[in-house]
Amino acid sequence: MKNHTEIAEKLNGKSIIRAAGEALRGRANCRIGVERESLRCTASGELAETAHPETLGRKDDNPFFTADWAESQIELKTPPCESPLACHRFLETLTDIALRELAARHELLWPLSTPCLLPEPDRIACARFENAAENLRRRKLREKYPVEMLLLSGIHYNFSFDDGLLRRIAGDGELQAVREGCYLKTIRNLYRMLWFAVGLLGASPASAGDREIQVSIRNSPAGYRTLSSARLDYSSVRAYRESVDRCLKAGLIATEHELYTPIRLRFAGAATDDAPEIDRLELRIPDLNPFEKCGISPVDMEFLRLLFFHSLLTDETELEKFADDADAVAEYGFSPDQSRKAGKLLERLAETARNISVELPDVLEQAGKRLHHPQLSYARRIRETGERSPEWLRLAESYRDQALAEAWRLPGFDDLELSTQCIIREAIKGGISFEVISRADNILRLRKGTRCDYVVQGTKTSLDTYVTPLLMGNKVVSKQLLREHGLQTPAGIEFQPDSGNAAEAIRPFVGKTAVVKPVSTNYGIGISVFENPATEKQLLEAVRLAGRFDRHILIEEYCPGREFRFLVIAGRTFAVTHRRACHVVGDGVSTIRALIEQANRNPWRAPGHHRPLVTIVADEAMKQYLALQKLDLDSVIPAGQDVQLRRISNISAGGEACDATDIMPERFKRIAEQAAAAFNAVVCGVDIIIAEPLTSASACAVIEANFNPALLIHEFPAEGKPRPAARQILIALGLLDRKL
Amino acid sequence: MKNHTEIAEKLNGKSIIRAAGEALRGRANCRIGVERESLRCTASGELAETAHPETLGRKDDNPFFTADWAESQIELKTPPCESPLACHRFLETLTDIALRELAARHELLWPLSTPCLLPEPDRIACARFENAAENLRRRKLREKYPVEMLLLSGIHYNFSFDDGLLRRIAGDGELQAVREGCYLKTIRNLYRMLWFAVGLLGASPASAGDREIQVSIRNSPAGYRTLSSARLDYSSVRAYRESVDRCLKAGLIATEHELYTPIRLRFAGAATDDAPEIDRLELRIPDLNPFEKCGISPVDMEFLRLLFFHSLLTDETELEKFADDADAVAEYGFSPDQSRKAGKLLERLAETARNISVELPDVLEQAGKRLHHPQLSYARRIRETGERSPEWLRLAESYRDQALAEAWRLPGFDDLELSTQCIIREAIKGGISFEVISRADNILRLRKGTRCDYVVQGTKTSLDTYVTPLLMGNKVVSKQLLREHGLQTPAGIEFQPDSGNAAEAIRPFVGKTAVVKPVSTNYGIGISVFENPATEKQLLEAVRLAGRFDRHILIEEYCPGREFRFLVIAGRTFAVTHRRACHVVGDGVSTIRALIEQANRNPWRAPGHHRPLVTIVADEAMKQYLALQKLDLDSVIPAGQDVQLRRISNISAGGEACDATDIMPERFKRIAEQAAAAFNAVVCGVDIIIAEPLTSASACAVIEANFNPALLIHEFPAEGKPRPAARQILIALGLLDRKL
Repeated sequence: MKNHTEIAEKLNGKSIIRAAGEALRGRANCRIGVERESLRCTASGELAETAHPETLGRKDDNPFFTADWAESQIELKTPPCESPLACHRFLETLTDIALRELAARHELLWPLSTPCLLPEPDRIACARFENAAENLRRRKLREKYPVEMLLLSGIHYNFSFDDGLLRRIAGDGELQAVREGCYLKTIRNLYRMLWFAVGLLGASPASAGDREIQVSIRNSPAGYRTLSSARLDYSSVRAYRESVDRCLKAGLIATEHELYTPIRLRFAGAATDDAPEIDRLELRIPDLNPFEKCGISPVDMEFLRLLFFHSLLTDETELEKFADDADAVAEYGFSPDQSRKAGKLLERLAETARNISVELPDVLEQAGKRLHHPQLSYARRIRETGERSPEWLRLAESYRDQALAEAWRLPGFDDLELSTQCIIREAIKGGISFEVISRADNILRLRKGTRCDYVVQGTKTSLDTYVTPLLMGNKVVSKQLLREHGLQTPAGIEFQPDSGNAAEAIRPFVGKTAVVKPVSTNYGIGISVFENPATEKQLLEAVRLAGRFDRHILIEEYCPGREFRFLVIAGRTFAVTHRRACHVVGDGVSTIRALIEQANRNPWRAPGHHRPLVTIVADEAMKQYLALQKLDLDSVIPAGQDVQLRRISNISAGGEACDATDIMPERFKRIAEQAAAAFNAVVCGVDIIIAEPLTSASACAVIEANFNPALLIHEFPAEGKPRPAARQILIALGLLDRKL
Repeated sequence: MKNHTEIAEKLNGKSIIRAAGEALRGRANCRIGVERESLRCTASGELAETAHPETLGRKDDNPFFTADWAESQIELKTPPCESPLACHRFLETLTDIALRELAARHELLWPLSTPCLLPEPDRIACARFENAAENLRRRKLREKYPVEMLLLSGIHYNFSFDDGLLRRIAGDGELQAVREGCYLKTIRNLYRMLWFAVGLLGASPASAGDREIQVSIRNSPAGYRTLSSARLDYSSVRAYRESVDRCLKAGLIATEHELYTPIRLRFAGAATDDAPEIDRLELRIPDLNPFEKCGISPVDMEFLRLLFFHSLLTDETELEKFADDADAVAEYGFSPDQSRKAGKLLERLAETARNISVELPDVLEQAGKRLHHPQLSYARRIRETGERSPEWLRLAESYRDQALAEAWRLPGFDDLELSTQCIIREAIKGGISFEVISRADNILRLRKGTRCDYVVQGTKTSLDTYVTPLLMGNKVVSKQLLREHGLQTPAGIEFQPDSGNAAEAIRPFVGKTAVVKPVSTNYGIGISVFENPATEKQLLEAVRLAGRFDRHILIEEYCPGREFRFLVIAGRTFAVTHRRACHVVGDGVSTIRALIEQANRNPWRAPGHHRPLVTIVADEAMKQYLALQKLDLDSVIPAGQDVQLRRISNISAGGEACDATDIMPERFKRIAEQAAAAFNAVVCGVDIIIAEPLTSASACAVIEANFNPALLIHEFPAEGKPRPAARQILIALGLLDRKL
């Protein structure tokens, strides 16, 4: 068949490299998606008998979290990513989210492929789905295979070549035929290197009856193997499908689902298509690497990419020379001969590495180390520790602690604003597909079913109209609308000092308490607060300061009391926090300067907006504020004494949020909701000053309404109960059910 | 009655001034609203027999435009304004709008109180309302009074004291009683000065049978007088209502509506209230001043305010000395004695003027001139010209021409952006009440019935969501969304030259046509267009230029063709314009420099954004562009030759808009609508480049979608048919009916 010969010629090593050319070196020459299974275990390392966490959405359709065979066998699935590193970062995000949710119920992820302590088999439940067929399938597997085998966990590495790359190889030839040829050549060659991959990545040594499997029980004949891959024909898609049909007819497998070969062809569209298109290859051999939080290292993900490309780019006659027995390697490890052959294969891989883009240049060096120093191999290290060592539980705990230490951070998304990361976290938990369509502008696109919506900077959504933020953004208009809705606001006037009327404007406030602020800036910048009666000179000085940020200045009466932020979403006050100005508590020996340094060592604090708290900076304003208290940075503070370091409590000025949702009288929550309604705002932060002591009868004044309210102060308060504000926004958007 | 005496004491001249104090000098010490009636006449000065203009909304409920007795007798009504000048500016806005709408049907506003040329009486129609009672009332008036009398037109001056001022006068006394006392004292005193006002403002001399009315037929016994004011009792509201009841019972008037006294008490709320509250006083004596476009000058409006305050602040015994016969003055003018008395009254007014705020300080000087030089009085000037002189038609034409010369401008609102002025114009025409709630930010609040909506900068409304403009504002995201919706966009990439990858980014474009632009700036700033293949050096230079405006740069293929702006509103392409770069046409003798100066003398051009076109500035870019054509600013251009002065056609760079709505093939209108739909945008300006020649099959590329599209280019194209875009926005908001 001419077509066949033509394609074979196109796919010989040299033509393919020539045709693909630059496309091989492009960053996104493939798509990689990973599935990681792990057993959930209790604090004492026993299999958790709880249900799959409700907070991780519906197992049936969450594309990120589901369960494998057992209810306690959680599965983390990344979407297709453009590179090993990108994929690993997504996997780390999923891992951290899972670890944090499990930590709340005192559970851990068991780090090994081989099971943790198991209860009586009848207490191990199959995963429960809403889809009855899924439940039936699991029950059938249970009848057919031992539970210990079904509980073996590992990594599935899904790989597809970039479409642009395949088109380049196809040139003016037929794309579908070239695609098929490429994937089939790759899978055939991959099988030739299976022994090599198992030997380098195997990490499930175990006893199987009277045999000691030294490297990988999952990849050994004692593993969960439904079918020998030898029974399948990879010469063409047609031949492949016929060989699968033969296995089905022979009753070797019940459904195609059960086709648990080490490498699987995966098709796009329905399995019954006449001419199904290969979508990707699924490599199922990697065991969980217990020395990695994510169960696999980025370098090993890069190593696997290299195996795929080496399979595509190398002539089959050439690679046939390297074929060997994977079963033997899984059981005994590399023989000295195999070890030498593996070394040569590494050299060939180095040639391929020069032809494609490689993100992690030490990929072959790492593999070589494990090859040449067997004591460094994962399997050997596990054997030496011992399968039943308490060390695995300690490792599981350390991964949990790592995830909790930076609870606000999503790896791979940490260049985005924290509020955007909160939305992504909730989208992942709720099984909402998302894309970051602008990293610079923090624009997310979220899809669930037929719904498609955007969230910008965490809180800007289609729930609000174009004019709502414009009305809120003008402090004078804001106050007018609030007053028209019957809400108390501080009396004040706007003026332009340029027009030379500053002295006249401030006159009514001389000798009174007052606040001077620029009309349209934010974060408390340029604001002066006079809690005690101000002199004309002080007020004029405050006007000059405010004037550096806006031509329009607002002078208002000062309302005594505590300022609270009310987060109103879709008409309801969802959370309330009080911001406390940055402060230190004395120990009787440290200076204020030293106490600040100590506070800044809190990992929650950093400069900028990438952690829940901001580094405390000892600036001129702080020195002046301390001077009012007859203190300076070198003062030593008596043990237990609390010293407030600034007048303003903004987070950006080192302030801290304290949740006050439960202590806030309902009356003020209703006032906040009315304030949001004055602007028809759906997502809105309302600042209200309430006179002390806080009772439902306290006097109050609405200071302003904010159109881009911080989520972080509610999600990660320095004190009090965290409130999942980002989740509430996704509920308001109709992307999540109110019921968890 | 003690209360009565107390109030009388409170209201004596000295106490009242002392009590009111500073409030008298406040800018907004009163509210003034004016109603102006005028006959609509044809180009030849005959009464228009057409219907009230449909474009000025429904007579029944438009608060700004209605008809008085006759269909041809238009009435312009300002809302209550804070000062004479503010009120006059609003009146001028109404006048200009009316003159422009009438000009479109070749009609004018007759400038005199006395009628223009009238047809046979049976061809003069009463104003037709949807409300049957209104029509019945007019028919009854026609039966009772001669048509010529009903057609007399004038000014009604509505006046109320500021509530704060009344509260100050009331002090701790009863506000309602003090309010009543103030208004009743004022009306009684005003009646004492009626002769004085008629003599100074009268402007309707006319023959009445065998008598020559020298000053004001409207204010003479031959005028439209239904009742002598002598029959009404102004001593208290109760006495007043009893006296009105007596007149009704005696059949002197048919309804309270017919109470056409020179000064009327107007009540708030229903007329049948037990204790009605006085809302304002209505002074009906001013005749139309034909020498003023608006029928009354700002100074005369200030003069009237002064009369009201003089009435409030002067003891009645004192003003009683100045009382005189208004009927005689209306018929014969001031006698020498009256003239002397008027002079003394002016001196007293000067004292009052010092106690209150006066916007127009020459108010008394102007009145004094007319008093002391009778040849300057309005009535005398009219008599000298002659009631039937063609001069009145010429004046009417000149007022129309003044209104048309700056068709984009609304007096009193000309500090706002032109697009906001367009919205205000359409709101007024449609009878939508509005407030400018922020002049600096161009925020309008519009109300009609129970609807309340906001329009910011002309096109930002609640029709669009918060995210739509954020998506459009990012050029890279924009292009992604457009492409995902199947629309053709120029191929290109975004990069940050700071990251040192400029050379790599531009490489694919070297030797090709290209456009280099900053990702997020506007108005064509920083954009370089290479219609001919560009060298690497040129592209790098363009990147440096663009980099001055944004860190993120976009380089795109250049799509040849003409760029059109499609204004899409609520899913439909409403208007299309093509922007033409600024250009001059030679005359064979003038240099380009001289031709530019000549073009800049067009009143449509000015620097900034306050006219439809922007001044052409001969800058470095222009010189370079001319040099490419082997021209410079001193080149003399042959007669008839058109020279393009710039590559870019932005209006801000002196470009001109040409309407292309009717020549645009439907296909591109649909493409523009799809582009708007890609962002869920309701108000959207879509820029599309279409290859020449323009046919429905031409190639095209969508350049971008704009969230704050200019309305002006459609409302006031330099060429082609104007398109009422602002009206369309109000229709989309549901504030106007689609049907005019």
